[in-house]
Amino acid sequence: MDEDFLLMIPGPIPVKPRVFRAMSMKILPHRGEEFNKLYMEQSERMKKIFKTKNDVFILAGSGTAAMDAAIANIVQPGDKVLCITSGKFGERFRDIVKAYKGLVIELKYDWGMPINTEDVKKALEKDPSIKAVTMVHNETSTGIRNPVAEIGKIVKNTRALLVVDTISSLGGDNIEVDKWGVDLCASGSQKCIGLPPGMSFISVSQKAWEVIEKTDSTCYYLNLKKYKNNKYKAPYTQPVSMTYGLKEALDIIDEYGFENWIKKHEKMAKATREAVKSIGLKLFPNDEKTCSNTVTSIKVPDGIDGQELVKLMREKHGIIIAGGQDHLKGKIIRIGHMGGVTEKEIIVTIACLQMALKDLGYNTELPSILTPIWKL
Amino acid sequence: MDEDFLLMIPGPIPVKPRVFRAMSMKILPHRGEEFNKLYMEQSERMKKIFKTKNDVFILAGSGTAAMDAAIANIVQPGDKVLCITSGKFGERFRDIVKAYKGLVIELKYDWGMPINTEDVKKALEKDPSIKAVTMVHNETSTGIRNPVAEIGKIVKNTRALLVVDTISSLGGDNIEVDKWGVDLCASGSQKCIGLPPGMSFISVSQKAWEVIEKTDSTCYYLNLKKYKNNKYKAPYTQPVSMTYGLKEALDIIDEYGFENWIKKHEKMAKATREAVKSIGLKLFPNDEKTCSNTVTSIKVPDGIDGQELVKLMREKHGIIIAGGQDHLKGKIIRIGHMGGVTEKEIIVTIACLQMALKDLGYNTELPSILTPIWKL
Repeated sequence: MDEDFLLMIPGPIPVKPRVFRAMSMKILPHRGEEFNKLYMEQSERMKKIFKTKNDVFILAGSGTAAMDAAIANIVQPGDKVLCITSGKFGERFRDIVKAYKGLVIELKYDWGMPINTEDVKKALEKDPSIKAVTMVHNETSTGIRNPVAEIGKIVKNTRALLVVDTISSLGGDNIEVDKWGVDLCASGSQKCIGLPPGMSFISVSQKAWEVIEKTDSTCYYLNLKKYKNNKYKAPYTQPVSMTYGLKEALDIIDEYGFENWIKKHEKMAKATREAVKSIGLKLFPNDEKTCSNTVTSIKVPDGIDGQELVKLMREKHGIIIAGGQDHLKGKIIRIGHMGGVTEKEIIVTIACLQMALKDLGYNTELPSILTPIWKL
Repeated sequence: MDEDFLLMIPGPIPVKPRVFRAMSMKILPHRGEEFNKLYMEQSERMKKIFKTKNDVFILAGSGTAAMDAAIANIVQPGDKVLCITSGKFGERFRDIVKAYKGLVIELKYDWGMPINTEDVKKALEKDPSIKAVTMVHNETSTGIRNPVAEIGKIVKNTRALLVVDTISSLGGDNIEVDKWGVDLCASGSQKCIGLPPGMSFISVSQKAWEVIEKTDSTCYYLNLKKYKNNKYKAPYTQPVSMTYGLKEALDIIDEYGFENWIKKHEKMAKATREAVKSIGLKLFPNDEKTCSNTVTSIKVPDGIDGQELVKLMREKHGIIIAGGQDHLKGKIIRIGHMGGVTEKEIIVTIACLQMALKDLGYNTELPSILTPIWKL
């Protein structure tokens, strides 16, 4: 496989060699004391990342497994769930609720538009039988950060559970599960934590446990009670190598300092936004205050085909960026700045983006250092 | 981590350095063409291992995920399922059926006893509304191989689907999904295929698809229709590194020759059985013809504590073997000979087993080469 590419999509991310080396350690028996200790220690450490005292479980499966678990354990047929959607992953939660035959009340915004917290308040007041509210913290499909803290304040005073997807922000943005009142927080390994895909995480509040205990759920592999009742050991075979990798990835974050790790993401996000604006591009979110800490989505300039741009970046420059999904295909591009991404990767990505745009006819003046390279 | 141990349990198994190196390649985007091609190619190659023309899907999750998918997609509340149980994993299928509110008709044998195929025939004749029959091909908890071919002949002529767990035998024993008429075959990565845990496989027959299409299932992450409807691309994020590893592991099997790979397992199984018998031990299965190709279970001699024996093997000799599960704890030990295990590992395991038994008071005469080592 040609490995001379730079991966700048919003996850999966380039995994550090240290993590790969850890993942190459000899396989331990998944039911032995040594592995159990390792597994439970990493579950404990993940609590720090979630900023919670709630239970946190590591699941063998990708982020959607954790999203599924969050719904499967609390929704019975006919249960009402308020699903806030403003992008692909908000819609995924809605679809999962439908799969479990929950009654979806959709609070729908155009992709990329901010959520109006007043709407959430009204919806919950209008129907106090709503059992849960689902939302995405960091909508990967649009590069928007949604106001979980504000919505948490509203949901806290109701019987409803707050279910949040933090797959593309956990570790790369400030997430305060306890302070915000997130009852079920689903996340994944392959974004700001710095692992390959294949592992996911879920935190479960006391309020959520009370609902889970009363819910007549139909699930087995993703049944959270199996985890709790197994004294927090994994009930089924865990991805041993990924667990070694998780320890190493969390060591890296600890060495960096967790708050510094988040600040680094903040800086990379800001640098990316400023750099793309400096070449005349417009951010996709209308309000920059709603911009994500981990992925920047950018409008493709008029007259340029976003899919062509992504292709040129890949083929000419060996840089993989993401296009838009679903109806945004060709209209936006997305650059991820997660995990170990540094200014070096940002510089080279934006520099090549500028050259690729120029190749496609975009009117832009290259800085002197790029001109000779562009002419190559 | 101390890596000076030899892992001889019935999975997970020691992973070859080649596979780890492949898993350390740069992460590709999971939705890009290159990864999709790789993923779909490995799904195709897995068909050869299953000996099937049926659809085969690779799932992100461990073996239980595939078992869950096999049931979740075909069982609605109230559906009757004949669950054949004679060990821990047969019971797991039964528990999954219960989780999905299927009506379990249990055909229960003592752990380690062979299945009487006549019983299956009678049960299906007695209740023609039975929708599925679940069984385990290779019962890891007892070291027994169950007669899937014979049961397949019976189930084929009914409306019922045959659902088989081949987690601990696929790749290490002859499995003929098409010839035997297995409708849903669930398996895992961490046994005879030679990967770390975290990935699983499922094959789906046309007869199974017809039932799946008609079943009003409640599942999302493990919904097989999502895979089929996504043109056989993975609908959710796949474990990219594990997929690289799968390609490498299948390359290793191809280089060895798949039939030779199975024969190697056969030889290792036979060698293990003969070696343990040569030191006076008895196999756990009463009938040696039912013995597994991939795991040998052995009765712990009277007066010796099996848990002590496992501990001594680990602590004195650095060899990890498995004890019995549930009510067989302390009564049997299990030695895995899966994947890349060669005669070298078998020799050293049985030699150390003999020394450990002698340490625990078992009356055995060590061969001359072991005596000086035992005295160390």
